[in-house]
Amino acid sequence: MIIAKVIGNVWATKKDDSLNGLKFFVVLPCKGEASQSFVAVDAAGAGIGDHVLVSQGSSARVLFRDGTVPVDAVIVGIIDSVEVDESLLG
Amino acid sequence: MIIAKVIGNVWATKKDDSLNGLKFFVVLPCKGEASQSFVAVDAAGAGIGDHVLVSQGSSARVLFRDGTVPVDAVIVGIIDSVEVDESLLG
Amino acid sequence: MIIAKVIGNVWATKKDDSLNGLKFFVVLPCKGEASQSFVAVDAAGAGIGDHVLVSQGSSARVLFRDGTVPVDAVIVGIIDSVEVDESLLG
Amino acid sequence: MIIAKVIGNVWATKKDDSLNGLKFFVVLPCKGEASQSFVAVDAAGAGIGDHVLVSQGSSARVLFRDGTVPVDAVIVGIIDSVEVDESLLG
Amino acid sequence: MIIAKVIGNVWATKKDDSLNGLKFFVVLPCKGEASQSFVAVDAAGAGIGDHVLVSQGSSARVLFRDGTVPVDAVIVGIIDSVEVDESLLG
Repeated sequence: MIIAKVIGNVWATKKDDSLNGLKFFVVLPCKGEASQSFVAVDAAGAGIGDHVLVSQGSSARVLFRDGTVPVDAVIVGIIDSVEVDESLLG
Repeated sequence: MIIAKVIGNVWATKKDDSLNGLKFFVVLPCKGEASQSFVAVDAAGAGIGDHVLVSQGSSARVLFRDGTVPVDAVIVGIIDSVEVDESLLG
Repeated sequence: MIIAKVIGNVWATKKDDSLNGLKFFVVLPCKGEASQSFVAVDAAGAGIGDHVLVSQGSSARVLFRDGTVPVDAVIVGIIDSVEVDESLLG
Repeated sequence: MIIAKVIGNVWATKKDDSLNGLKFFVVLPCKGEASQSFVAVDAAGAGIGDHVLVSQGSSARVLFRDGTVPVDAVIVGIIDSVEVDESLLG
Repeated sequence: MIIAKVIGNVWATKKDDSLNGLKFFVVLPCKGEASQSFVAVDAAGAGIGDHVLVSQGSSARVLFRDGTVPVDAVIVGIIDSVEVDESLLG
C-alpha cells in the first residue's frame, strides 16, 4: 500500500455502470510529485486533505462485487499517524 | 485509475480473436510525456481529445467475457471535471 | 497495452514444461530505450521488425491454459497503423 | 519479491473491516530512496529495523482470507542473510 | 518476462510456511543497475551466474499450489541464447 493525500475530486457522468455510486478522489503519494497523482475510489469515508492508505492493482477491486468492478486503486483507510525511525533511512 | 487524454487510434487486423470488435485508442497520461502514452480499449464511448478515466492491469479485463480477454488497460469513464486543491500539492 | 517493436529472439531449452512450444521474442517499447526491452510470448504470428500490441501482467496469461502458464507479457496483435493527433500532445 | 528494511509503523483506526487486526509497517526497499518507501502488512513477525522479504501485488493478498482482503504488499519473511557475487554486478 | 542474471542467494528461516522448500535468488535485470535487483524463486534449476527468464506478478505464483503461495517473481527458464537485430534498436 502507499500513503497518499486526498487533493481533489473527479466527476465522470459517462462511465461503466458498475462504477455508479463510487466516489473518485485525486490522491497524491506522499513525497510524490504532482505528475504522480492518480485516481482512487474511496472505501473509508475519506475527505479532501486526509492522509490515506491506498491499495492498488487487483487488490483494490476485491472490495467491490467480488472483484468484478474495473477499479485499480482504492482508499482502504484513513491514517491516524505514521512513526518512522529516521536513523534507519540511511 | 489515471486521468489521460485520448490522442489517437490504433488498428491491428491480425490479432487474437477475443480482441475483435474492440476499439483501441492511444492515451496520454495527464502531465505525462509522449513516451508514456499507451493503448487502452474503450468501454465508455470516448473520442479523440476526450479526457478519460483509465483502469489498468487485471482490473481492466474484468469488463470483458469474465476477464478472459487479454486487455490490460480500459477507458472506464469520460471525465466531466477535476477539482484539485492546489494548496495541498505542497 | 503498449506498442512495441519485435527486435530479437530468445531461446531457453531448460524451462518450465508449461512454456514448451511457446515463441519468445525480445520486444522494445516504442520511444523506449534498449534497457526497457523485455520478453513477450507471441500469440499473433509476429516476426522480427513487426510493430506489435503487447498485453502485460495477468492479462497476458489468460490466453494460455486458463491462465495457469507463468507468462506475464504476450503479443496479442500486429499493428497495421497508428494515427496520433500531434496537436493533442501538448 | 524485494528486500526491504522495516523503518516505521502506520496506524489507521478508520479502515476497511477486513484490515482489522493486521499490522502495518513502513518499509524501505534496500538501495531505495525515502520516497520509495511504502506500507506492507506483516505476516512474518517482523520488527523495526529488520531486513525483510516483501511480496507485492495480488501475490500479497493470497495470504489473507482466500485473497479477498485489499492488501497489495506483505512481509513474507525475515532475512537471515544475503550473499551477492559482486563480480556479477558488471 | 525479463532477462536477468542470477547474482546471489537469499536465506530467510522465519517465513510464511508456504514458502518453505523454495530457493530464493537475487537476480539483476540485464542492462539494469544494482538497485534494480530483486528476489525470484527458482523453478528452472538455475545457478549463480546463469542468465534466466523471470516472470513477475500473479503470473509468477501460478506455478505453486494453484497460485496460493505469496510469490511475485519466478525464474521460469534458463537462457540458451538471445539474438537481437541491433539495427532495429533505433
